[in-house]
Amino acid sequence: MDPGESIMQRVLELAAQGTASTQPNPRVACVIVNNGEIVGEGVHQRAGEPHAERLALEQAGERARGGTAYVNLEPCCHQGRTPPCTDGLIDAGISKVIAAMRDPNPLVEGGGFEMLAAAGIEVEHGLMEEQARWLNRGFVSRMTRERPWVTLKTGATLDGRTAAYDGTSKWITSAEARIRVQELRAASSAVITGIGTVQADDPSLDVRIDGALRQPLRVVLDSHLQLTDNARVIGQDGHCHVFTLSQDEQRIDALSAAGVEVVALSDLSSGRISLPEMLAELAKWQCNEVLIEAGSTLSGAFIESGLVDELALFYAGSILGDKAQSMFQFEQPVPFDQRAEFVINNAEMIGPDVFVQALNQHSWQSLNQN
Amino acid sequence: MDPGESIMQRVLELAAQGTASTQPNPRVACVIVNNGEIVGEGVHQRAGEPHAERLALEQAGERARGGTAYVNLEPCCHQGRTPPCTDGLIDAGISKVIAAMRDPNPLVEGGGFEMLAAAGIEVEHGLMEEQARWLNRGFVSRMTRERPWVTLKTGATLDGRTAAYDGTSKWITSAEARIRVQELRAASSAVITGIGTVQADDPSLDVRIDGALRQPLRVVLDSHLQLTDNARVIGQDGHCHVFTLSQDEQRIDALSAAGVEVVALSDLSSGRISLPEMLAELAKWQCNEVLIEAGSTLSGAFIESGLVDELALFYAGSILGDKAQSMFQFEQPVPFDQRAEFVINNAEMIGPDVFVQALNQHSWQSLNQN
Repeated sequence: MDPGESIMQRVLELAAQGTASTQPNPRVACVIVNNGEIVGEGVHQRAGEPHAERLALEQAGERARGGTAYVNLEPCCHQGRTPPCTDGLIDAGISKVIAAMRDPNPLVEGGGFEMLAAAGIEVEHGLMEEQARWLNRGFVSRMTRERPWVTLKTGATLDGRTAAYDGTSKWITSAEARIRVQELRAASSAVITGIGTVQADDPSLDVRIDGALRQPLRVVLDSHLQLTDNARVIGQDGHCHVFTLSQDEQRIDALSAAGVEVVALSDLSSGRISLPEMLAELAKWQCNEVLIEAGSTLSGAFIESGLVDELALFYAGSILGDKAQSMFQFEQPVPFDQRAEFVINNAEMIGPDVFVQALNQHSWQSLNQN
Repeated sequence: MDPGESIMQRVLELAAQGTASTQPNPRVACVIVNNGEIVGEGVHQRAGEPHAERLALEQAGERARGGTAYVNLEPCCHQGRTPPCTDGLIDAGISKVIAAMRDPNPLVEGGGFEMLAAAGIEVEHGLMEEQARWLNRGFVSRMTRERPWVTLKTGATLDGRTAAYDGTSKWITSAEARIRVQELRAASSAVITGIGTVQADDPSLDVRIDGALRQPLRVVLDSHLQLTDNARVIGQDGHCHVFTLSQDEQRIDALSAAGVEVVALSDLSSGRISLPEMLAELAKWQCNEVLIEAGSTLSGAFIESGLVDELALFYAGSILGDKAQSMFQFEQPVPFDQRAEFVINNAEMIGPDVFVQALNQHSWQSLNQN
């Protein structure tokens, strides 16, 4: 591994510390090296708080002068809630900036690099770019596709069953797997479910991790606005949004009074909530990554529509047979050569269960093309 | 790790070299240590050829005198196709024998140890016993339960589907997974399938590995004796047995003429082949481990009957949805708390697929109790 790569590896590890907290901002870290020595490190923690470059420059102080700044994302060049990082790097006398990737925002892409270069700073990018894009796949997706990165989570038996024939399914997977689900939620801008799951299980869908800095938005898809204001999904810290086709003002008012944001989508005469339209709305609300934790009907609709970017599947060591309930209800029988294709990225034991992470290959390609 | 354990680890690794070749004999190796030095190693290769102890003693020569013999199974004390190993160890002047486990055969269990002890040799057993029992789980099962160890193999999508709604299923899993299936077959005394699979896919079910020393017995369950003598399962090296309820002598004669052994089981008025009766027959034919490679009906019947000891499941990164064909057809809907329970032992990537190995906990317990 070349020395630059090992430093960028460090940058990516530091940036990952912000996985559950930086949203809607990307996860960014900066390491400043001078004469072969690390003189400053910074990690962006939360929107509104200092950017990684500023923190690293502060730590480096005078030793930043003539140094090289490694950062996983192109430094910002615009005034936001904090001043532009390009100014800070220029003022501190940094001589070289090595970034893993450009800012994927089509409006600013390359602008930070140009400003640095205009000030005489040497600029490189592309080092460990794939890993950097993976870390910020939600942010990249929102910037380039105008929709969040969609991860679908489900737990099943080894034969792909989520419940017995009669719907019984409590705790198919283990306590260890449920901790991993908490981490998946914490990394998400929003958790999406359907009204059927709310009515059947009344989940709270919140993050129950000590020291959690934020709660993901909880989103319920509820065509006919059947959600009642005593549902657990409403009564937790953070916000709950409901997508509906209903125009029942009395129900809308009651839910609004309970703190729920009700979003009425156009029907398009399908009688169903348009999933792409809903995802576009979530992107407008600055959702980078969303996690689907739903039943087999809504989960199946997401898979069938090709909108799932990533699968997070937990398998318990049991078998329920063909009469039990399926993981994914599809509208239509699918011919073999039109099956939904994913690339399995990882398989590991989590406690007594198997965890499988798989990627939609088209999503992965589009992430790396922009 | 204590020094004895690292030597027994070596013994188990050597013994595993016989995985595909020793049947119906167990997999056995022997390492002789004298003054802290390994002076002889032996691995049993094939029935009728020398036992591991004999080979290790031969290599050690005079240096065996006063040494310690490590072996994963109690040395034999009876004249078989080769002379008893206990005699060899005594004659060579071995002073101590450390065995991982007793011979599980209830008729001889402990006899070897007694003979050694009577000759003044110190005897220990139980070192790495669990690993030793796992290596010879088929032999232990045949000796103690009078049936083979049953491994069920299947390949499916991530949602547990083996074929599209119309039966199309060619190559759900990858070339790498198919190589692993070859290894599973090679380790088995017999490969079992159903007439439905023969009629649908016409599999050859043979081992196609360079240097394979033997072919597993190929077994077809065929209640109505529909097997035709041009089926690939018949025309390969090795033997093919058919279990049937039919008494159609003309068909039986035709298949016998094609080299097939036809086994007519009693009907018991269920109209089905009794799976326990069939397994008992296979044990009589000295089958230690059998591999089920069948369709969802026969596979489901094995799972539902509780006769599966081990699952070998391959998952490809695709999804077919609820209209597609299930991994396991059950006779009856199963209540959630009566689901078939397995303990997942291992999950790993094999090429682009996930391989999951899981054990029937009752089987594992019975293996370690006897």
